[in-house]
Amino acid sequence: MHNPDADAIAAAIGPGRKRNWNRFGAEDEAGLANLLTPERTAAAARLIRTGRVFNLALPLQERGLPVLPGRPSPQHYLRRTGTDYAAGVRRKGGFQSMDDMLIVATHGATHVDALAHVGDDDLLYNGVPIASVRANGARRLGIDKCPPLVGRGVLLDLCRLKGVDRLEGGECIDGALLAACAEAQDTAVEPGTIVLVRTGWLSMFREHGSEAFFASEPGIGMDAARWLAERDVVAVGLDNYAVEVIPTETGLPAPVHRYLIRDCGMYLMELFQLDELAEAEVHQFFFVAAPLGIVGGLGSPLTPLAIA
Amino acid sequence: MHNPDADAIAAAIGPGRKRNWNRFGAEDEAGLANLLTPERTAAAARLIRTGRVFNLALPLQERGLPVLPGRPSPQHYLRRTGTDYAAGVRRKGGFQSMDDMLIVATHGATHVDALAHVGDDDLLYNGVPIASVRANGARRLGIDKCPPLVGRGVLLDLCRLKGVDRLEGGECIDGALLAACAEAQDTAVEPGTIVLVRTGWLSMFREHGSEAFFASEPGIGMDAARWLAERDVVAVGLDNYAVEVIPTETGLPAPVHRYLIRDCGMYLMELFQLDELAEAEVHQFFFVAAPLGIVGGLGSPLTPLAIA
Amino acid sequence: MHNPDADAIAAAIGPGRKRNWNRFGAEDEAGLANLLTPERTAAAARLIRTGRVFNLALPLQERGLPVLPGRPSPQHYLRRTGTDYAAGVRRKGGFQSMDDMLIVATHGATHVDALAHVGDDDLLYNGVPIASVRANGARRLGIDKCPPLVGRGVLLDLCRLKGVDRLEGGECIDGALLAACAEAQDTAVEPGTIVLVRTGWLSMFREHGSEAFFASEPGIGMDAARWLAERDVVAVGLDNYAVEVIPTETGLPAPVHRYLIRDCGMYLMELFQLDELAEAEVHQFFFVAAPLGIVGGLGSPLTPLAIA
Amino acid sequence: MHNPDADAIAAAIGPGRKRNWNRFGAEDEAGLANLLTPERTAAAARLIRTGRVFNLALPLQERGLPVLPGRPSPQHYLRRTGTDYAAGVRRKGGFQSMDDMLIVATHGATHVDALAHVGDDDLLYNGVPIASVRANGARRLGIDKCPPLVGRGVLLDLCRLKGVDRLEGGECIDGALLAACAEAQDTAVEPGTIVLVRTGWLSMFREHGSEAFFASEPGIGMDAARWLAERDVVAVGLDNYAVEVIPTETGLPAPVHRYLIRDCGMYLMELFQLDELAEAEVHQFFFVAAPLGIVGGLGSPLTPLAIA
Repeated sequence: MHNPDADAIAAAIGPGRKRNWNRFGAEDEAGLANLLTPERTAAAARLIRTGRVFNLALPLQERGLPVLPGRPSPQHYLRRTGTDYAAGVRRKGGFQSMDDMLIVATHGATHVDALAHVGDDDLLYNGVPIASVRANGARRLGIDKCPPLVGRGVLLDLCRLKGVDRLEGGECIDGALLAACAEAQDTAVEPGTIVLVRTGWLSMFREHGSEAFFASEPGIGMDAARWLAERDVVAVGLDNYAVEVIPTETGLPAPVHRYLIRDCGMYLMELFQLDELAEAEVHQFFFVAAPLGIVGGLGSPLTPLAIA
Repeated sequence: MHNPDADAIAAAIGPGRKRNWNRFGAEDEAGLANLLTPERTAAAARLIRTGRVFNLALPLQERGLPVLPGRPSPQHYLRRTGTDYAAGVRRKGGFQSMDDMLIVATHGATHVDALAHVGDDDLLYNGVPIASVRANGARRLGIDKCPPLVGRGVLLDLCRLKGVDRLEGGECIDGALLAACAEAQDTAVEPGTIVLVRTGWLSMFREHGSEAFFASEPGIGMDAARWLAERDVVAVGLDNYAVEVIPTETGLPAPVHRYLIRDCGMYLMELFQLDELAEAEVHQFFFVAAPLGIVGGLGSPLTPLAIA
Repeated sequence: MHNPDADAIAAAIGPGRKRNWNRFGAEDEAGLANLLTPERTAAAARLIRTGRVFNLALPLQERGLPVLPGRPSPQHYLRRTGTDYAAGVRRKGGFQSMDDMLIVATHGATHVDALAHVGDDDLLYNGVPIASVRANGARRLGIDKCPPLVGRGVLLDLCRLKGVDRLEGGECIDGALLAACAEAQDTAVEPGTIVLVRTGWLSMFREHGSEAFFASEPGIGMDAARWLAERDVVAVGLDNYAVEVIPTETGLPAPVHRYLIRDCGMYLMELFQLDELAEAEVHQFFFVAAPLGIVGGLGSPLTPLAIA
Repeated sequence: MHNPDADAIAAAIGPGRKRNWNRFGAEDEAGLANLLTPERTAAAARLIRTGRVFNLALPLQERGLPVLPGRPSPQHYLRRTGTDYAAGVRRKGGFQSMDDMLIVATHGATHVDALAHVGDDDLLYNGVPIASVRANGARRLGIDKCPPLVGRGVLLDLCRLKGVDRLEGGECIDGALLAACAEAQDTAVEPGTIVLVRTGWLSMFREHGSEAFFASEPGIGMDAARWLAERDVVAVGLDNYAVEVIPTETGLPAPVHRYLIRDCGMYLMELFQLDELAEAEVHQFFFVAAPLGIVGGLGSPLTPLAIA
């Protein structure tokens, strides 16, 4: 059925619906990750000079992570504990092993969205019917179809550019700001790049807690989204919870998700920890983020790395 | 209390108990990953020539993974589906997003063991009391203390060396075999290396199912374990379910785990998919495996990469 | 869309599709539980003479329950353990409490099916569209709409009638057999009765394991289903895994479920432990089974009681 | 090791530690449920007059339940949905069944505490060592050892007695108040009774949300606890979250839990919905609550019934 809000969102997005559909073939499920060619990866590897590895993930824990209200926190359960053994539990041959279970919302920690995560008007990227996402998973465009994101990474440190600790909640980032930052840093945003944008917003969670963190956020607006899409950026990661500015420019939910994921096949990544990278003034690096291959998954928790 | 099997396992292991304890400091929780220095990482990056990326993980799914009897399969649940929208569910602004939950045994897919995974005689690596592993996780030596495993990787393709499709169940790999393979391939095993050993055993699961797969396996014996430890290998990954030969040489459970994890602080990795790498004859590469930072976790599912 | 198998299943079921639709009102969601009137409940209470309480549930545990292949076993995780305290964990004020999580398939233990559990040709009981069962639960006919099942219970002990320990796998129970048993026991099956049928099949699991247990089972055939429906039985519980005979009479999947749940609004209950009741020769009793009020749930684990 | 707070809690509790230890035998695991003899059950059944059944459970759902901060909400996941079928998913023979998983904290909904839930000074009820509660469950005193709670129930409607809608947060109920209420209602509290106490506190959650609900609560103080214990009450259920008054009288955590569960072997039940029962002025009834038989469980979600 036609979605009555489709016209409003189409107007909000402007030209460019279906931007990359069929670009990589009618059956393509990887979207802009197709641009991560071996050549680009090999070239990006030459950015590794000192060998320093930055871990961009937040610790995965039940408490201490900003988790969207209404989404379960990560849960971690042990099937055997060391205290069991210390208290006298004995297994054959004196074996003392311990293991555990993880329950995690795939979008509830540092993560990447699958292309199946967001649709519009009953269609996903490349025209895939939304009904292909069933109770047992996405038959197409699942996170298992996302190749490892390995290539040239660029950090656009907007805090540094603007001389602030963090951008304001609701502050809308446009293409000109991204361009200015790239130029100031001398880090061109070329096709096949993975772009990380630092807003400093995570400090809102650390300083003021979850409610303040989720009430609003600085983020990518539609103009910046188009800027990224025009440059064939493969993936964009922010230190906020939704990549895009909240509240959105028009008030309609998630226009940037709808455009970048569905129309462009770009990968959105959230809850990145970028402070250490910024502090070291590392603005270009070899980026490696390998999602778990959850078959039919709509996203994956992630430990993204910047290697400099 | 003293573990009555401690003497037997000490005899099975031979000299070398507490091999690396205190080597990296009394408070160290990273073990041999301390050898992954920036210098080594930078040198390893120069192994990237073609830019080809090999994903060494098995797909993460409820069916189709070999899962140890008595351990729950991965489970994947959607909080919203596309079929919901296709069947008429409407949200504000026509928003169509879908997300999901993952329930996974940290050792139930391609994974790395935390140093807290296996102890002996009530002690973990570096003398940490086993009672530090509580119901809410390992307070020390959890997988969150394991840095990203980034460095030089070597594939020892024993199938190729021996001209077989897979080694036999119960076949015990010794140090001489590893040395011969390394020499035949001209891939020296140096300090700080991550070693992957190909036995072909995963094909047993694909061809004969779970029961045959878990009944036995070819794997590392105590001699090979010492060989790896003497060479200061950081991590060892196999295409079987337990790294070590099953049944074990003495019949005592898991001597290789006890020695390499607890005494040496080495990382064991299991259920690796190594066929594609072997087929491409890539025997040296830039290895990247970044565990999820599960606070207090006893292991982590993993998407390890070999980049050549 | 019309289900091409609808005609086959309609033929298998014969006359009587939509049997009780609209009988209790167009908006009814409780089905035959409407017959559990206070009058009937009060009358049934007079069956309590000795005060003996029989627990008809199997223990809820990860191992030791027959769990259908492809369905996760129950999982039970502790958030705090006593061994933690014994090993020295201290909380404020010396408090020592322990709690835990249960993960359970609602149909993976002794349970009752919600009326939303099975549909046919895109319709559920009372003509409710099957699309009302969404990722976040059944908006109609969920187990939360099932009132506590409290009333007169009758055990039809077919093993006793036939002088066998258990019926055969694939043995089809017909209405005449149920009638003969009711008569032999002098326990008339009247409107508003909850009927338990003992086949002895659980012993197959205990003696021969899961595979044999699920390979086939004795159970209710279409003739017996009609017999139960004609007598306005509210709920029927068996000591097998599917109530109905497996393989089914026609080979089509689950005709008894389709007829009794969808057409009649009857409650099906499975994995009942009936041996103790049979041994005590208690054939009439006050039956109490109160499902968990899982909002939108498709079933509920259950601890059914027979009070005599 | 001796718990340094043990003396303080012993002083807070006063005489009566180990009150019922060994009373029902050194190996007893059922505590005061031993008093639910068939004779008492049969006598209680005669309280059923009208046959009206009151469901005392709150709906089990992810949102809408008061869930203690730091404890996961119930989660409910479908393995198949009706929207899947409506959107065209087809199974063999046109079968349309749907099922689901429940993840629930055993204390996170209307529930009963197992006797293994709370210990003190490393001991549980009847002197069982607390170390018997291991990662895989309580080897003794688990909820599987709690028989169905079936017997005479009495509602002490303190709101009615006091002419208020709800008692105040922090209001401490003493034995005299319980006695006065029992007398005013002409509902003697005799050995073997299950006592429900209405404070009206649940309305705090409905009207002011979770934070206000958990900030404090009216409840049982130590004097009332002794009053209940002296009368050999089997189980006590309240419409609050902890049975006992919060903050506690001495500030020490949970003295009532420590005394009633550990010393007396009494069953504590929480989050009961008692309004309907109170409105109908039903103060005596046949009480039935059958916990799930979670092997080694520390509590169980519950659908308690009052049958009048």
